Amino acid sequence: MILDKVFYPVDLKNLSLDEMNTLAGEMRKLIIEKVNTTGGHMGPNLGIVEATIAMHYVFNAPLDKIVFDVSHQCYPHKILTGRKEGFLNPEKYNDYTGYTAPEESEYDLFKVGHTSTSVSLAVGVAKARDLNNDKYNVIALIGDGSLTGGEAMEGLNNAATLNSNIIIVVNDNDMSIAENHGGIYKNLKLLRDTNGNADCNFFKSIGFDYLYVNNGNDIKSLIEAFNKVKDINHPVVVHINTLKGHGLDVAEKNKEFFHWVLPHSLDDIQNPQTDIVEDYNSVTKDFILNKLENDKSLVVVTAGTPGVFGFNSEFRNKLDKHYTDVGIAEEHAVAYCSALAKSGAKPILNFMCSFVQRTYDQLSQDLCLNNSPVTMLIYWGGISNADATHLCVFDIPLICNIPNMVYLAPVCKEEYLAMLNWAYSQTKHPVAIRVPSCELVSSGIVDNTDYSVLNKYEIKEQGEKIAILGLGSFYGLAQSVKSEIQKVLGINATLINPRFITGVDSELLENLKSNHNLVITLEDGILDGGFGEKISRFYADSDMKVLNYGAKKEFTDRVPLDELYERYHLTKELIVEDLVKLI
Amino acid sequence: MILDKVFYPVDLKNLSLDEMNTLAGEMRKLIIEKVNTTGGHMGPNLGIVEATIAMHYVFNAPLDKIVFDVSHQCYPHKILTGRKEGFLNPEKYNDYTGYTAPEESEYDLFKVGHTSTSVSLAVGVAKARDLNNDKYNVIALIGDGSLTGGEAMEGLNNAATLNSNIIIVVNDNDMSIAENHGGIYKNLKLLRDTNGNADCNFFKSIGFDYLYVNNGNDIKSLIEAFNKVKDINHPVVVHINTLKGHGLDVAEKNKEFFHWVLPHSLDDIQNPQTDIVEDYNSVTKDFILNKLENDKSLVVVTAGTPGVFGFNSEFRNKLDKHYTDVGIAEEHAVAYCSALAKSGAKPILNFMCSFVQRTYDQLSQDLCLNNSPVTMLIYWGGISNADATHLCVFDIPLICNIPNMVYLAPVCKEEYLAMLNWAYSQTKHPVAIRVPSCELVSSGIVDNTDYSVLNKYEIKEQGEKIAILGLGSFYGLAQSVKSEIQKVLGINATLINPRFITGVDSELLENLKSNHNLVITLEDGILDGGFGEKISRFYADSDMKVLNYGAKKEFTDRVPLDELYERYHLTKELIVEDLVKLI
Repeated sequence: MILDKVFYPVDLKNLSLDEMNTLAGEMRKLIIEKVNTTGGHMGPNLGIVEATIAMHYVFNAPLDKIVFDVSHQCYPHKILTGRKEGFLNPEKYNDYTGYTAPEESEYDLFKVGHTSTSVSLAVGVAKARDLNNDKYNVIALIGDGSLTGGEAMEGLNNAATLNSNIIIVVNDNDMSIAENHGGIYKNLKLLRDTNGNADCNFFKSIGFDYLYVNNGNDIKSLIEAFNKVKDINHPVVVHINTLKGHGLDVAEKNKEFFHWVLPHSLDDIQNPQTDIVEDYNSVTKDFILNKLENDKSLVVVTAGTPGVFGFNSEFRNKLDKHYTDVGIAEEHAVAYCSALAKSGAKPILNFMCSFVQRTYDQLSQDLCLNNSPVTMLIYWGGISNADATHLCVFDIPLICNIPNMVYLAPVCKEEYLAMLNWAYSQTKHPVAIRVPSCELVSSGIVDNTDYSVLNKYEIKEQGEKIAILGLGSFYGLAQSVKSEIQKVLGINATLINPRFITGVDSELLENLKSNHNLVITLEDGILDGGFGEKISRFYADSDMKVLNYGAKKEFTDRVPLDELYERYHLTKELIVEDLVKLI
Repeated sequence: MILDKVFYPVDLKNLSLDEMNTLAGEMRKLIIEKVNTTGGHMGPNLGIVEATIAMHYVFNAPLDKIVFDVSHQCYPHKILTGRKEGFLNPEKYNDYTGYTAPEESEYDLFKVGHTSTSVSLAVGVAKARDLNNDKYNVIALIGDGSLTGGEAMEGLNNAATLNSNIIIVVNDNDMSIAENHGGIYKNLKLLRDTNGNADCNFFKSIGFDYLYVNNGNDIKSLIEAFNKVKDINHPVVVHINTLKGHGLDVAEKNKEFFHWVLPHSLDDIQNPQTDIVEDYNSVTKDFILNKLENDKSLVVVTAGTPGVFGFNSEFRNKLDKHYTDVGIAEEHAVAYCSALAKSGAKPILNFMCSFVQRTYDQLSQDLCLNNSPVTMLIYWGGISNADATHLCVFDIPLICNIPNMVYLAPVCKEEYLAMLNWAYSQTKHPVAIRVPSCELVSSGIVDNTDYSVLNKYEIKEQGEKIAILGLGSFYGLAQSVKSEIQKVLGINATLINPRFITGVDSELLENLKSNHNLVITLEDGILDGGFGEKISRFYADSDMKVLNYGAKKEFTDRVPLDELYERYHLTKELIVEDLVKLI
């Protein structure tokens, strides 16, 4: 194997073009095997193998600085920068993250997982270089849909005026995670169709020099292009036309499915699962399709990640003009939905929990200040073993402290549907729902609650002395804590489903004082700024004791869930131990 | 006066061009008089008088929908839509807000005050129209620097693919609040210089039809242009070249100063004040200039609003290459600073409190996850009589619940300087400082605190029974509450300056338990998700009682400060009344 003699970028410098082409094949094979075993980003990495080899052949990292956007296309880079064991040796498959990570390697500049940041970061690196009178190349590698995110556009606007070396490599694979959306992609197509020669050039219009590489999976062409721009003294865009999933037939054909795959997807695709499992995604889709039959004002909105919600192409086609994927443009999505709601349409906006973070000001100003009746669904909220870049534990503090917002936490299918139906039908508030991240639970009982009466918690089981507030996906934990308290302390605790994250049920909480002296809150997110602290504040001037359980304010990085639950005392045993100590 | 017979847009329809020109002069005079009396946005409104008349002459609002960006250029629109009394009658000068406000008029679609939202909102309005098979024009009026905000770029990218009527009027006055920054403005200049005929056209590149109006202060040209695009069936940009401050000589000459003025600025400019008053802005500027003498790695960064910090052109010129105004691009600003800090430069990033809201995900991902040692200064934080769009009470929950961030609240000049010096010198954390929004207080004593020992509160006066935690600009209130407690209850309360917003001083709080039974927290912002709730959580399982004081989670709109303090019990008398009831 050529890879046997390649450990770091410097080892590429003496390879022949043939050897580099062979190396690309070897790397591709490793990536396919590794990703098919562990899951991960398949298509983006297969598409960028050649460009990564060419970049490291031409530029001199780590002296030259390469900033990866989203950084889910960094696997080839990791193979070439001292971390190939993570792909060669199955026992080391999990040693490295799927994103750039400065703690792993000096070749990684930033910890990145959200999109559209690379250009802004690269401008900072370049400016620091210039102030320090250093000489090196600063390269941002952006693509795969990231170009439409506002931060990328802000970055490009500033990069263009830098007056010194900055190289923006636009990896144009004609895809986002799903298909691309937006005017800029029309221009990329025009540029591809004209071999980069069209007069009307987005990048040139804002002041960039520009170079087009038609075969972005051809190492020779890429090396030539990168050599042309190396040490350039002004901002330049190198637009490379690549094939997402390159070299893996099924991934080339089904680019969206192979963007990010679960383990063994290649095996599964030979034997596709036909069982239809009911989950919160399928329940959501059924709700939407039912509504659409009689209500042509419905609009389903996503921001580039329809797959997270199970919104496959079949579902999207059914929605037709009632579906908008705005591309990776979460801010736009919120404002767009606010205006839809104000103008007689009924938007249902879908976000993965980690990405709602990109929209705080739009939630506050465009949505809540205007009190637009948008239904917003937040998926995957909760403590997990995710990468530090994709944690889903910050949404409660983010959303629930904005005036006018109603944020709901259903605990079962029937409650979720009732909340969804109410949110969709009402016209008074922006309503967000934290779609349970746990397995679907069905109570079997239709929920007839009138959610227009805000901030009414529900006493599910009346007891005494201790009351447990189990929010959303932690309601199950609350149930088991109640049982454990009964078992260990012989106390019949009260079990409460708060349902509303955004408000305090003063009447119910006040009533608890009569025959309770301890309230336990459980929330599947960070405690700081969240739900439990509001309960603590409510009781702060009284004799009621409160124990708040949830995650600590910290960035965890692929920590196993059990370990986190242990760390935060989120098991029935640990909670009852705490109780015993307190009582 | 022509204005005598103009109440609503329909009254324009029968006016001759001469009459409309006369009307423009009348409106301009009213705006100058009113703004010089009450303060407000002068230049932006003077520049858009003619375009507003022409828009309302050609289009049929409220059937046709006009969405104003930032909406600080809506004064002429207000005059023409039933609200001229607010400009004619000094007694009614304060009856209407300085921004579009749907509660005032059906001609105002959204409550808007932050920039760069109009295009996204307009796309939503247009999409709802199309779903409903309605026919009307949707117009977004954007300019004055708003074009560079990420949300605007996201909106343009989506607007361009709408396939139906949407008209983006780009009010190009060659200015932001201060001068423009970024590549897109080079393209606007090229388009101006070529009378709109340059091949390289930013708007065309992303798919817009395009029309240029060279004299954007000429009603006749504007009417012709708007007539051309009225009822158009596809997305179009109308690029109008206007003069900020048009018709007021001093405002044309000093565009930045006259963007937003205090009352009587026209009078003051004849008799300029020469007293140099020390305030937190001047202290900040002195610190920066002193540092720069020996440290060439310093970079001061603003995002389009240098005036808020007193960073006038003289100061900016002194900083030279050590100053970056990124334009209205707050997200970029954060990522840029993170990269600067990681690459050996020392950024000091400056935000008005209300606008830091635009950067949550960048603070979390680009900055804090990467733990970059950026110094971030947050100005104007606190409860105020501001418009609902510009409230500065949400920053504490926004910032202080992000891991790794250190958020400091100084109470006097000496402490501020010590914190600033530490933040700037250290390399371990992103550090934000809430620059006091109250008048400068000087203790006269150099602060030698080692702020690298995080989350250490300071006991300023040791007492007993009651402890008062007075955060930042509310430290003065805490002092007066202490006196009032002494007077009314005869208790010598303990007075504490927390200094750190982002963490709890467990040791100090634990010690308070020995001879205190009540803790009062005071913070100049909303309680929900803020500082006080964390103190309540700390003591929630103990016998310590806590009272949290701060603002309620609500959008207030130009409510007098006294009234808010009364509402939130933020006076020494009301707080001691609460105490008496509790004790």
